[in-house]
Amino acid sequence: MKVSTLGPKGTFSHETSLLLGADEILFKRSIWEVFNAVEKSECEGGVVPVENSLVGGVSQTLDSLIEFNLKINKEYLLPIHHNLACWGELEDIEVLYSHNLTLSQCEKFVRNYLPKVEIHETSSNAISAIELSNRKDKRYAALVSEFAAEIYKLKILKKDVQDEKLNFTRFFVIGNQSTLPTGKDRTSIVVSPSVNRPGVLYSVIKPFYDAGIDLTKIESRPSKKKMGEYIFFIDFKGHAKDKKISLTLKELSSIFSVKILGSYPRAY
Amino acid sequence: MKVSTLGPKGTFSHETSLLLGADEILFKRSIWEVFNAVEKSECEGGVVPVENSLVGGVSQTLDSLIEFNLKINKEYLLPIHHNLACWGELEDIEVLYSHNLTLSQCEKFVRNYLPKVEIHETSSNAISAIELSNRKDKRYAALVSEFAAEIYKLKILKKDVQDEKLNFTRFFVIGNQSTLPTGKDRTSIVVSPSVNRPGVLYSVIKPFYDAGIDLTKIESRPSKKKMGEYIFFIDFKGHAKDKKISLTLKELSSIFSVKILGSYPRAY
Repeated sequence: MKVSTLGPKGTFSHETSLLLGADEILFKRSIWEVFNAVEKSECEGGVVPVENSLVGGVSQTLDSLIEFNLKINKEYLLPIHHNLACWGELEDIEVLYSHNLTLSQCEKFVRNYLPKVEIHETSSNAISAIELSNRKDKRYAALVSEFAAEIYKLKILKKDVQDEKLNFTRFFVIGNQSTLPTGKDRTSIVVSPSVNRPGVLYSVIKPFYDAGIDLTKIESRPSKKKMGEYIFFIDFKGHAKDKKISLTLKELSSIFSVKILGSYPRAY
Repeated sequence: MKVSTLGPKGTFSHETSLLLGADEILFKRSIWEVFNAVEKSECEGGVVPVENSLVGGVSQTLDSLIEFNLKINKEYLLPIHHNLACWGELEDIEVLYSHNLTLSQCEKFVRNYLPKVEIHETSSNAISAIELSNRKDKRYAALVSEFAAEIYKLKILKKDVQDEKLNFTRFFVIGNQSTLPTGKDRTSIVVSPSVNRPGVLYSVIKPFYDAGIDLTKIESRPSKKKMGEYIFFIDFKGHAKDKKISLTLKELSSIFSVKILGSYPRAY
């Protein structure tokens, strides 16, 4: 399968694309460009991160799910491990390259082991690896994945340096087509209440509760229209074609603006 | 008032601290260090960003609100404007310094006006300004606030380049003491359900609905324990000492783990 994903080589998105069996990969500069490539049929699918178990939702992906008319076809959970790569020992390190989300996931490690280090934030873990591979000097270090360390031939000094050992990133594969029910599916929708009265969230989730539909996630995001106004990304078990679910979505759509982002096989 | 906030000079946090009347400022490297300075009484208060109207919650602040036993004393809405600073014209620009959240707020502008530019992500808008001030060369540009441009003597070529004109960041002032009711307050709590059964969010918000309490925000965050398990940051109108609210919080606490993060005068 030919997919587009976030580049450069060595990102978690690249690793996930390979694990999902991609045999040709278009590397893009932003998540918006990944969606755009799928919409323009430059590739069959796009692989994008949607949330991390420590940090929460990836806002560019959530925004693009609203902007584009594509469907989620698959979800995948990638276990995340960060590692300290450098050319010397801990006490030699003066500069640390890290993506800012990676840094926040390794904050205690950096505070305890590298309190005086100068931090250079990068735009991705792969870029951190590239920066270090360009500076073969023991004063430099980077927080990288094993996958990136392998690609850029880096030396890992300390493995698994993130503060919480349980760390996953959930990825979506997006495409132009809907997927059929498998019997063990999940559906993602976004609900835009367009009113900001008290109790709106209650009215959004009550129909699911009444129908006995198992909500697996609800994430509120700013509506971008007014401070204190939110839209809701909701995941639940089942396929949009299941009778109970299609009735509930119909009921919800009569009150609120509802967009179905896709039904796809559950990974957890 | 002596406060700690996110440095270096020129951050939105710095600007907010001055607008709130701070006359002495301790600049810290991370939000965790701002909380720590307040807890250790190095200063009277800490000024931290909590959410942006376009991007959503600031995870380091939400994490620190859980970790530390401090109280929210005040909220403040700072209007956010991003500007393109450079030494020459648009067509001269080859490298753009930007914080990654700023970049995502100016994505359409950059896509349309600077499609081929090389992006160097920085750890803050103030650092973007410092990087540009260190390179007085028309090939370089940065996305910065007017405040940072003034401090670092930069030239603004294009004002207000963010994609959505309505853009606010909400800040909290945190301290060691609780604040008294003013009659126009808001309260923030975090609820950790510790069970992951269907309908848990429904049970969390139903008591508020039943008591007629006006929820102004609900934000789900990963519990960090298990994929698909969430905790909820909830804001509502009123003070924790109000009778209706104290009864509702008591009811909620009998079912879930609830932490009151503070009651404080409403800014909107």
